[in-house]
Order: sequence, then C-alpha cells, then structure tokens
Amino acid sequence: MSGEEELHNSPIGVFDSGVGGLTVAREIMRQLPNERIVYFGDTARVPYGNKSKETVTKFSRQIVRFLQTQQVKAIVVACNTASAYALDELEKEVDIPIVGVVKPGARAAISATQNGKIGVVATEATISSGIYNRYIQENNPGAQVLGKACPLFVPLVEEGLWEDPVTEEIARRYLTELIDVGIDTLILGCTHYPMIRSTVGKIMGDQVTLVNPAYETARELKGLLREKGLESEHRPGLGTELYRFFVSDAADKFQKFANSILTYGILSAKVINIEEY
Amino acid sequence: MSGEEELHNSPIGVFDSGVGGLTVAREIMRQLPNERIVYFGDTARVPYGNKSKETVTKFSRQIVRFLQTQQVKAIVVACNTASAYALDELEKEVDIPIVGVVKPGARAAISATQNGKIGVVATEATISSGIYNRYIQENNPGAQVLGKACPLFVPLVEEGLWEDPVTEEIARRYLTELIDVGIDTLILGCTHYPMIRSTVGKIMGDQVTLVNPAYETARELKGLLREKGLESEHRPGLGTELYRFFVSDAADKFQKFANSILTYGILSAKVINIEEY
Repeated sequence: MSGEEELHNSPIGVFDSGVGGLTVAREIMRQLPNERIVYFGDTARVPYGNKSKETVTKFSRQIVRFLQTQQVKAIVVACNTASAYALDELEKEVDIPIVGVVKPGARAAISATQNGKIGVVATEATISSGIYNRYIQENNPGAQVLGKACPLFVPLVEEGLWEDPVTEEIARRYLTELIDVGIDTLILGCTHYPMIRSTVGKIMGDQVTLVNPAYETARELKGLLREKGLESEHRPGLGTELYRFFVSDAADKFQKFANSILTYGILSAKVINIEEY
Repeated sequence: MSGEEELHNSPIGVFDSGVGGLTVAREIMRQLPNERIVYFGDTARVPYGNKSKETVTKFSRQIVRFLQTQQVKAIVVACNTASAYALDELEKEVDIPIVGVVKPGARAAISATQNGKIGVVATEATISSGIYNRYIQENNPGAQVLGKACPLFVPLVEEGLWEDPVTEEIARRYLTELIDVGIDTLILGCTHYPMIRSTVGKIMGDQVTLVNPAYETARELKGLLREKGLESEHRPGLGTELYRFFVSDAADKFQKFANSILTYGILSAKVINIEEY
C-alpha cells in the first residue's frame, strides 16, 4: 500500500469537551459515509464553556497531540468553545487540515438571515470571545449580532431534560432579549444545543431560523478533503473499524449518552490519560 | 524559631473541586480563628461529582502534593465526592492529619435523627459510592439511609439561582421520595448545597433537620489539632497572610464567587498548573 493510499484511508479526528461533539460526528457520518472517524471526548475535564482561554487551549493542544498518534488526516474541533479559543493556535501547530464549528455556523447564519439580525446562543466562553460576531461582521458588515450565554443549557441537556417545563422556563429567560430585538436567525452555538432544538424553536417561533453548525461543518470538511485529495474513495471493508471512541473518563456514561445520539451503535469507548499528551 | 513552633504556625490545607469547599473554609475560619489556611479550588477540572473514582483520586492526589509544597500541617478534603472516592487512598499516602467531610456529616446526622430515617442529597459520585450509608450503618446499624443524587443543584448554585422557582421545582422533584419515606434528618452531602439551604428547607418542612457537614468537620479538625499538639496558639501577627487561595483556572470568577460566600475579602487567588503535581 502506498503512503498516499494510506493517507486516503486514514481517519478524521473529531473532538469535544464531552458528548456534545457527537452531534457533529453524526453529521459527518451522514455526509461522508466512507470516512473513518476517531472521536475523543474530554469527559474528565468537561465542561469547557466556563473555563479560560489558556486552559481550553492547553486541553485542546493535548487532544490534538493524542489524535495525531492515531494518524488522523484531518481534525474537526467539534466544540464551539475550543473553536472560539484554541483554533487559531492549533492551526499554527499542525500541518493537516483543521476545521472548527464557528466559521461554518457563521456562514450558514449569513445565508439564512433576511433582516440581518442574527442571534447566537452559546457558552459563556464562546460568547465572551466575541468570535461569532467577528466572523459575521467580516463577511457581512451590515449584520447585527446579539450573543447570549446560556450556562444552564449544557447541564439540562446532560440530565436528559430535553423537553421539560424547567428547560422551557430557563430557555424563555435566556431567549426573551433575542426575541425583543427581532432576530430572524439563531445560531445554536454549542454542540449540546441541537438536543433542545424543539424547546428553543417553540419559544422563538416559526419565523426564526435555527442554525445548527454541524451540517455546514461536515460540508466544509467534505470540500476540504476533496480539495486536498484526501477523500476516502470507498467504504472501508468488513473487519475495518469505522468509528473509534476515546474518552478521558467514565466510558460507561459516555456510551450510554452516545447511544441516544448516534444511530450507529457504539461498541466501546476506551479511556486514555489525556494529561500525558 | 524551633521546628515545632514552625509546625504550630503552619497553615491548614483545604481543597475542593471548585468554590463549594469555601463553605467549609468559612466554618474553619469561624471555629479556628488562629489558624492560617491555604485553599485550593480545582476550577480547571470542576465538577468532580459526575466523574469516576479513578479520575477523582488522581486529581485529589495531585492537589495533596501541591498542598504539601505549601508546608501544610493538616489537610481538609472539603469536597464530598473527593472524600467519598479518594480519602482512604490519601490517608495511606500522607503522614499529616487528613479530614474529610463525610464522616463528620454522618456523625452529625446520627446525633440529630429521632426516627432513624436519614436522607442524603449529594452528587452522583457520592451517592453511588454508598459511603454515607456505610458510615451511618457502622455507627447505628438500625438506621435507614436513603441517598438521592441531585446533579442539577451544583449548576443552579453556580448560576446564583439560590432562591428561584426553577431551583424549587428541581428540588421538589429530587426531594419528594425522601419526604415520602418520612426522613427526619437530611444531610447536605455536597459543599455547594448549603447555599440553597433555605429552598431545600422550605420543601422539606420544619420537622426535618438539615445537616451541613461543614460545622462538624471544623469541630473534628479542631479536636485533631489539639490531640496532636498542632494548634496555632495565637493569631498570626500583622503582615502575616492569614488566608491564601489557589485555583487551577479562571481566578477572577473564583474571586467573585468567593466574595459572595466569605465575609473575609479575598485579596487575590493565584492560578497554578495542577497537572504538574
């Protein structure tokens, strides 16, 4: 097997602070069915959304180093907080393609908006980075971007309260100011949020388009692999492990959650010591 | 200055996964006003309550090593999850007195109960360790102990929703089965929970005694220091830093939260790289 062919067949590395990035992995599985995936969820240090840029960058760097030991041909930062805080640094340090979720999400929102008023719901870290605002303004200087940190959404999602009066009440408190401003497009700027899409949609109303960056991220990855000649040309044969999952803690809980998100059954998730990377 | 005198004047090390342990530190400040304290909050890896025994033990061990570099004369594990999962291991590894919050909490509940029915609210980790049950049964085999994991309490406390209809609704869901069993004593088995004591008390009613292990923990520490001849004999002089605070991330947020718990103004919290210990 030639080196180039090996590269074609190498997996895509996908990482997140925990389980949220599985919503992005799911979309990659749908749009790029021939690609193998190595997923890493940092369950020992989750969540990232209320931590500092320095810490999130350090953690992300360790994960990228781990993924490189798995011979990945490209990396998807399937976490908005890590994309917001660490992507620029990571791009400088690795020589394989690396894709975040923020730029694709911003682009999708720019296409979707009619009135130029775009809302972003995300973690405290992503909102305080101002990154969605920056990308959107760069590409559409007339747009008005309103960000809102929703720190309780992640724990509510993780507790499974996806459609629950409590989640609805909390969502109403977070979203009221976005409704008052008259946004017509709302970016779900955290990979956990697609799970409460219907609750958010109910409050925002039919006239507001909800943007899940996962779809656009998988599309960007697809284009990038094609451009670099890195696409896998056929579905890996029987006996090849298509998807592999690694976590830094508590593999059981991860598997349980993952099985509620992915249709593909997760056979096993392996625990590794991420601090060693 | 003799070595023994130095030891007298050495600080107490207190640690937690984050800010919750400050409720224990506050109680030590009250009951042992002559003692210096070095506090460590693991804000880069918080929370511990949904992580595994292996991970919590590894994190706790690193923190104990850090505290020992600060020449502490005793250590208080001001976190129920770390006390439940790691205390036995830590005791084997250090030769200074080390106190957790679980045993003191269990003892206080045994004294308080009239009908022998004791409830425990805590993190998933503490509840699944079964440790409160074990300690209480050892000392009072007739007691009936009912544990309930309350995973949303920590995020609700951290968001400041201490007295809020949402916290009340969530508390009602968690506590109903404890009320139905007819407990007369409820252990607040997580150092965050004293902040929502009034909400919990409102739901449980006046006839149920709420036990905050912090008080009993400070008492146990006091007795232990006396027994070992380690008490500080007078209040440190002017110019001595009485309390020092270290965190693994985001010192600003920690300071803000700490100032809402402690009457003593936190002048500064220093960030250290805990993974190096």
